[in-house]
Amino acid sequence: MVTMLNHLAIDAGGTSTRAVFLTAAGQCLGYGVAGGGNPVSRGFLGALDALAEAAGKALGDGPSPFATVTVCMAGASLDLPEHLLGERFAPLGLAGHVMIEADLLGTFYSGTFHDDGYALIAGTGAVAGRIAGGQLAAVADGSGWLLGDKGSGFWLGREVVRAAAAALDGRGQPTALTALVLAEFGITLDPLQRSHGRSGAQQQLIAETYRLRPVELSRFAPLVFFVPGDAVAGAIIDRAADELARTLTAVLDARTPGPLVFGGSVLTKGGTVAAEVVARLSPGAAFDVPSGAGGIPHPVLVDDGVVGAAVLALKRSGVVVEATVFERISSTLAALRG
Amino acid sequence: MVTMLNHLAIDAGGTSTRAVFLTAAGQCLGYGVAGGGNPVSRGFLGALDALAEAAGKALGDGPSPFATVTVCMAGASLDLPEHLLGERFAPLGLAGHVMIEADLLGTFYSGTFHDDGYALIAGTGAVAGRIAGGQLAAVADGSGWLLGDKGSGFWLGREVVRAAAAALDGRGQPTALTALVLAEFGITLDPLQRSHGRSGAQQQLIAETYRLRPVELSRFAPLVFFVPGDAVAGAIIDRAADELARTLTAVLDARTPGPLVFGGSVLTKGGTVAAEVVARLSPGAAFDVPSGAGGIPHPVLVDDGVVGAAVLALKRSGVVVEATVFERISSTLAALRG
Repeated sequence: MVTMLNHLAIDAGGTSTRAVFLTAAGQCLGYGVAGGGNPVSRGFLGALDALAEAAGKALGDGPSPFATVTVCMAGASLDLPEHLLGERFAPLGLAGHVMIEADLLGTFYSGTFHDDGYALIAGTGAVAGRIAGGQLAAVADGSGWLLGDKGSGFWLGREVVRAAAAALDGRGQPTALTALVLAEFGITLDPLQRSHGRSGAQQQLIAETYRLRPVELSRFAPLVFFVPGDAVAGAIIDRAADELARTLTAVLDARTPGPLVFGGSVLTKGGTVAAEVVARLSPGAAFDVPSGAGGIPHPVLVDDGVVGAAVLALKRSGVVVEATVFERISSTLAALRG
Repeated sequence: MVTMLNHLAIDAGGTSTRAVFLTAAGQCLGYGVAGGGNPVSRGFLGALDALAEAAGKALGDGPSPFATVTVCMAGASLDLPEHLLGERFAPLGLAGHVMIEADLLGTFYSGTFHDDGYALIAGTGAVAGRIAGGQLAAVADGSGWLLGDKGSGFWLGREVVRAAAAALDGRGQPTALTALVLAEFGITLDPLQRSHGRSGAQQQLIAETYRLRPVELSRFAPLVFFVPGDAVAGAIIDRAADELARTLTAVLDARTPGPLVFGGSVLTKGGTVAAEVVARLSPGAAFDVPSGAGGIPHPVLVDDGVVGAAVLALKRSGVVVEATVFERISSTLAALRG
């Protein structure tokens, strides 16, 4: 049965989940999208629902037998019980087993079919990995909002709100970010009006911030790009690039020249941060790049990890994925996504 | 009835609450201690219980009539319903009203009887205030663990754990803090043993950190002082002093020469951080001190805000508190505390 050589590949992100149904030759047959599929943020059952919904859309009408399911998700989820995912996918047509892979690998293989290189992701979180022989050989950061994720969307959003709070009480320089942050919170008090020695607007800003879950601060991240020429905003972008360059540098190895794949909205939307990270890793720049005089390769920017999930599905099943198959996956998936 | 001129003064902190019963002449008659009395961390009713327990110990056997209750607590609690506190203190002998004052004022008046100057607190949180005419005229930071409290015990503890996490994946320099942090968490894995490209010890460090409430990271703060000569720990102390100097600088005003009072364990235990803050505010040093060529005055270090709560109780009741009365409060309270 030729159809038994088909595979299902899923990229489960924090805010959305993408699934693709493809043949062993890399021909994508169906594509589906659902909500967030990360068990840490959605809960295990909620994440499972999102995976199944995206999968159902990719498979189309009726059960279509497939050999394996490959799910890419953030590193913290690697200890999930694969047999529970298997139970959920069996009625959809799963004949074989479930494979859970790191989001870093999904991102990496969305940009290349080679088995050695680097991936840097800066979405809500931030993490870098060195890939060797198709496996993660080193990981840096990805330590979450409280300990790290430096340069991520959360980190940027928190720094934006901090800059507004610091400007309001004189610890920080005045910045155009203050008005944007107060407007985003719906705070209309005059920042100059004080009570108990404190700006009423700042007092309200503090109170509103602690009503959010910390990760929700990531919604303020885009504001940093809305005020070109603002020194405070520029300094935040510079520090984000410093932190991401430091995270990537931690996994560089002179024996692995590349390729390098960038993923996540902070790096792929707009391009400012990606360019700043690359500039810091050029020969003679601030960071000590161990890969020799050539510096790091130019990064490939990818929107998400679904191509990589498909590449992994085939590679882990013993299919040789080279330029032709990789190109077939990319082009047939692009056609399905419209 | 002369006894009706007595007053109750309470310093309600995050981890402990101190109450003193005193005469209008500043003679302290009784002293009591209870657990945390901050409504933000304990809840309103839990905080009320702590206030009443400390008050009961200060008042001794049987109800002793007193004119007022003065409670010093962190700024965020200034909107508490004073009449509910009044209901709780009436059975204990309260004849008059309840006054809630900022912890910054309690700290300030624990070091001086003057009505103009500055207070800087670095305990679990961090906040600075300028006092003018016995009221808060300007406040900086005190914006909580997510937005600020820079240089506080929480901030130090988080930086210590971050330094360990960064050292484990190569983003940060090696530091003696890593072994101390792993030991404090009870993590015995070899930091060099890796899985999925990540140190197992770091993976466990991350997981354990997110099991804590964020403010509990303050328990790691003392470790920064345990490794003299460690460059990473030294840099954290330097940054804490930078941040506290910046916070204090934000409230300095050339027309207010001082005095300056330091409170909170980060500034008063050991003395390293306090000295570093003072050094940064000396003439010609990094921070721009607007109070003229003399720089800032030498700080008075105070253990807590209970003397200041007593000073406020008398001042707010119309008693003139000068050197003699201030000295009487301080010495008779010291005798009661043993």
